[in-house]
Amino acid sequence: MKGVFITVEGPDGAGKTTVIKELSELIKKNSNQSLTVTREPGGIPISEEIRQVILDPKNTEMDERTEALLYAAARRQHLIEKVLPAKEAGNLILCDRFIDSSIAYQGAGREIGEDEVLKINEFAIEGNYPDLTIYLDVPSEVGIDRINKSRKGDELDRLDRESLAFHEKVRESYLRLVKANPDRIVLIDAQDNIEKVVKNCYDLIKERYPLFFN
Amino acid sequence: MKGVFITVEGPDGAGKTTVIKELSELIKKNSNQSLTVTREPGGIPISEEIRQVILDPKNTEMDERTEALLYAAARRQHLIEKVLPAKEAGNLILCDRFIDSSIAYQGAGREIGEDEVLKINEFAIEGNYPDLTIYLDVPSEVGIDRINKSRKGDELDRLDRESLAFHEKVRESYLRLVKANPDRIVLIDAQDNIEKVVKNCYDLIKERYPLFFN
Repeated sequence: MKGVFITVEGPDGAGKTTVIKELSELIKKNSNQSLTVTREPGGIPISEEIRQVILDPKNTEMDERTEALLYAAARRQHLIEKVLPAKEAGNLILCDRFIDSSIAYQGAGREIGEDEVLKINEFAIEGNYPDLTIYLDVPSEVGIDRINKSRKGDELDRLDRESLAFHEKVRESYLRLVKANPDRIVLIDAQDNIEKVVKNCYDLIKERYPLFFN
Repeated sequence: MKGVFITVEGPDGAGKTTVIKELSELIKKNSNQSLTVTREPGGIPISEEIRQVILDPKNTEMDERTEALLYAAARRQHLIEKVLPAKEAGNLILCDRFIDSSIAYQGAGREIGEDEVLKINEFAIEGNYPDLTIYLDVPSEVGIDRINKSRKGDELDRLDRESLAFHEKVRESYLRLVKANPDRIVLIDAQDNIEKVVKNCYDLIKERYPLFFN
């Protein structure tokens, strides 16, 4: 049996991290297959090195297109070394962010252009689109409010410091992606309480891939 | 007056480094404008860091598409931080390798596909093609022979260790680029002795951009 590659997407403050954590536990309890939970760079040495270049606070001069190419490079290596072997081994894979994040954040948020960013990411993934993408949707005000409540100022990274306008551009891009890819991307309302959101994600996966569950 | 962006290309063993060195001296002596001689990563910190990731001997697992994306990222940053400001300042710029190297080496040599590699590089250069590209042409046997004579075994880098077949694929790709871009790329026979090659390059540049010369 071949594995299943599932990505989880959403703007900052959608609760992605918590949802993935609890969803993973629920799946582990009820699945008969191995589960791989990952996110880029995912412990892949080359991708880790690339991310260090992106996140190095010295690199304030980094051009947005340089950054987008580096994200695509880290994605490529993580896909080749971690995702595809796990899929080949028959695992269910939960990946925190993938190609759609780049379209929404670099393409729309940073205004490089969605089609432009899509091109370099299609080069990177070479047809290996996720089998299913769960998009956790949250209005921008709610998302930003959640971030501000959960972190201290000096913990905020560059992206979190961006304005409401940026968050809105990102969310609108995600909503366009949902509309353009109705078979692959499923919107889950992330304003609900966490148990409900996790349950909705779990039910969706179980319904699509019943053979993975007891 | 706006500057001129000239790139020098060619397969290994074409004599690029020597030609650029002697050509630069000749231009400096006879030009009334500033000359910028550069090559990626060109002392641009972000590009240097990216190249370190590519060249790190630990990274033997690097996928060819990851590598191509990293080259494009280093190119982008070098273009933004060094080439475009020099052009804006009215300089004559000599750049050792640029987009055509990626098409020939990654696209054809490593068989990713020329069109595929073109796509990510067009993203990187965003329309900033060189004004003139000098392609130093040398038959593959001659090129490999020159490399073997000039270096010791442990000095050979990864690319130089590649086979004759690889060198031939690279050269054929360059020749296709010359044919497809007759206005931008000029072929100079690099089998001639070095003085003649340098003279031919110099005459070409002087003829195209007479205002830069005394």
